[in-house]
Amino acid sequence: MVYVTRRAEFSASHFYHNPDLSAEENRRLFGKCNNPYGHGHNYVLEVTVAGPVNPATGMVADLKELKALIEQEVIELMDHKFLNKEIPIFASKLPTAENLAVEIWKLLAPKIVSGTLHQIRLYETPDLYVDYFGE
Amino acid sequence: MVYVTRRAEFSASHFYHNPDLSAEENRRLFGKCNNPYGHGHNYVLEVTVAGPVNPATGMVADLKELKALIEQEVIELMDHKFLNKEIPIFASKLPTAENLAVEIWKLLAPKIVSGTLHQIRLYETPDLYVDYFGE
Amino acid sequence: MVYVTRRAEFSASHFYHNPDLSAEENRRLFGKCNNPYGHGHNYVLEVTVAGPVNPATGMVADLKELKALIEQEVIELMDHKFLNKEIPIFASKLPTAENLAVEIWKLLAPKIVSGTLHQIRLYETPDLYVDYFGE
Amino acid sequence: MVYVTRRAEFSASHFYHNPDLSAEENRRLFGKCNNPYGHGHNYVLEVTVAGPVNPATGMVADLKELKALIEQEVIELMDHKFLNKEIPIFASKLPTAENLAVEIWKLLAPKIVSGTLHQIRLYETPDLYVDYFGE
Amino acid sequence: MVYVTRRAEFSASHFYHNPDLSAEENRRLFGKCNNPYGHGHNYVLEVTVAGPVNPATGMVADLKELKALIEQEVIELMDHKFLNKEIPIFASKLPTAENLAVEIWKLLAPKIVSGTLHQIRLYETPDLYVDYFGE
Amino acid sequence: MVYVTRRAEFSASHFYHNPDLSAEENRRLFGKCNNPYGHGHNYVLEVTVAGPVNPATGMVADLKELKALIEQEVIELMDHKFLNKEIPIFASKLPTAENLAVEIWKLLAPKIVSGTLHQIRLYETPDLYVDYFGE
Repeated sequence: MVYVTRRAEFSASHFYHNPDLSAEENRRLFGKCNNPYGHGHNYVLEVTVAGPVNPATGMVADLKELKALIEQEVIELMDHKFLNKEIPIFASKLPTAENLAVEIWKLLAPKIVSGTLHQIRLYETPDLYVDYFGE
Repeated sequence: MVYVTRRAEFSASHFYHNPDLSAEENRRLFGKCNNPYGHGHNYVLEVTVAGPVNPATGMVADLKELKALIEQEVIELMDHKFLNKEIPIFASKLPTAENLAVEIWKLLAPKIVSGTLHQIRLYETPDLYVDYFGE
Repeated sequence: MVYVTRRAEFSASHFYHNPDLSAEENRRLFGKCNNPYGHGHNYVLEVTVAGPVNPATGMVADLKELKALIEQEVIELMDHKFLNKEIPIFASKLPTAENLAVEIWKLLAPKIVSGTLHQIRLYETPDLYVDYFGE
Repeated sequence: MVYVTRRAEFSASHFYHNPDLSAEENRRLFGKCNNPYGHGHNYVLEVTVAGPVNPATGMVADLKELKALIEQEVIELMDHKFLNKEIPIFASKLPTAENLAVEIWKLLAPKIVSGTLHQIRLYETPDLYVDYFGE
Repeated sequence: MVYVTRRAEFSASHFYHNPDLSAEENRRLFGKCNNPYGHGHNYVLEVTVAGPVNPATGMVADLKELKALIEQEVIELMDHKFLNKEIPIFASKLPTAENLAVEIWKLLAPKIVSGTLHQIRLYETPDLYVDYFGE
Repeated sequence: MVYVTRRAEFSASHFYHNPDLSAEENRRLFGKCNNPYGHGHNYVLEVTVAGPVNPATGMVADLKELKALIEQEVIELMDHKFLNKEIPIFASKLPTAENLAVEIWKLLAPKIVSGTLHQIRLYETPDLYVDYFGE
């Protein structure tokens, strides 16, 4: 069993506002992230696939295919977007790093054909990242 | 003469649209950056001050003061903001890395009291940065 | 279950000397780290908290609180200090990266209220780091 | 139980070609990596050893010994080499990051005397790395 | 005048051998780099273009065009290649970082149409880089 | 003219205290850096040598010699040391990044035989660095 991780990047903007809470509570909970105009990040995504090494290729997965899959399922959807307004799922769910990681898992897991998706790591900034293992 | 550089970070969103050009020309020139919802970056700012070393302190400038100045003049103004809509100068000027660097120079240069401002470097992503030397 | 990691930094000095061993044995074991004047590092600390995502906030833990907790419990205690002489526990315990990670766990684990402490990673240099999971 | 990771670097070249497959299939599978002249990388290797902290040293393992072991078993063997032609095992096995991680495990695991080898992480580029845990 | 820098990466292999010198002198001068099988690096290239900011675009140069130019003139030529054997100029010139930077300058300078080429920085490893300013 | 930069690292501790100033003034000027026990950093040193490319070697300078010179003149002197107490010049001069860069220049400039010393860059932390060009 070897774990292969591919890194990709996208730039997006977001803000945090829970309509079930008061304006004051939103400001207290989310601070500067509550600004409705949004602000942005250079997100760094690491996708880890686990599996045995295929003796014919020496690889767990075809990396060109994995790169294309990340590009097609995640980067094209989210890059240079305002997550709250342009990604339907985030109309009703806060686009935090936690929720982004879970949604990216859901996008990628069913499409991975060599090996299985093991981990999604998402850096919102170099000082803040989340990991999700599918459960 | 020694050059001292202090790094700081802020997260902001922006988009590029020149109202004097057609929609098509805007799309051609700016590509995904033309999306009016905006997208964002973790900007990394490097401020370089040049001067002789003060023998009493062994320093070109008081770094606590320089840090506070960057915080107060740049970070408080731009962090977690949508640059096009919330920073007045960018209502009429495109918030590109080039223009951001020039505007940050204008904000900081008159306030630096020990040494003189030598360089503004601004990273929009790890793969794209600009330098401005004040002229 | 999502794992959230927050990074922080502090600068400190230390040296290694075991009074139960001979001077020669100390030199052999610890090399340049045995120098009693101490030397220093820019430590990079990563604190990982695990838990379910709170649907009201989209987060595992309040990151402003987590940041404040790390600041108050670890950074204020250790930053710009000579660990052997100024942190009581290291009067009788070698301030290695291993022991630092264990002590930082003990400082933080009881104070974390949202989610549970999952991992302490401490970089002594970019080329040397330790992980501790609480047992 | 504490996990200690030591990082090291080496530069090597390689290419991918499976003699059991047609030239066309090799090109399809391996793309630019199929070029028989080879191309190269600055590999970054992270070796993680796990064990209890020795109270006499405050350490899991003697880091000077671990560094020397990595140098002697891996760096001297692979640094500045064409892996396919100069490392015997890669005459019959593709020198992918996956296979390299597994072979490095085999080289190091029997030689580690304090603690046990827990993980080999190998970066082929900053955007691609593999992990191997020995099984 | 603003300076814009775009970063790109390529992986290649090379070795150093001067046929006018004895085998012994080659070994003394070039050490492990004299190995005729070659070894490789993840090269990081930074291309800096200088010019005034175009008020219509807020930019010194069209970054999509600059990226495409670097891709077409440098990356397609050198990526996943054995520089000594596959790049004609390096049949008669040592493919050191110094010579690579000068050759990359010659490839790019005549093709840059907005602003002028100001600097080529080439990292051979994170610990070794060269700068060339065209003269 | 090509500029070649070699990076090296050392770990040291220091503190700032000017005996000509009052205790209060020292605290005000130097804050946490005034702690007489010292604290430490992983210093990153970049040494840049400028010169023409030697056609026989394709290099500005023999990098093995440059590396050995940095090791011998700077790293052996300063690594794992308390700069104030163990480096004579810093008994009477504050060991700030500025003064360290100037002293490192003085140590290296007369010993460089291929090319000339062009720049000393010293990172005290990733967020603070100084440059010195010899005058």
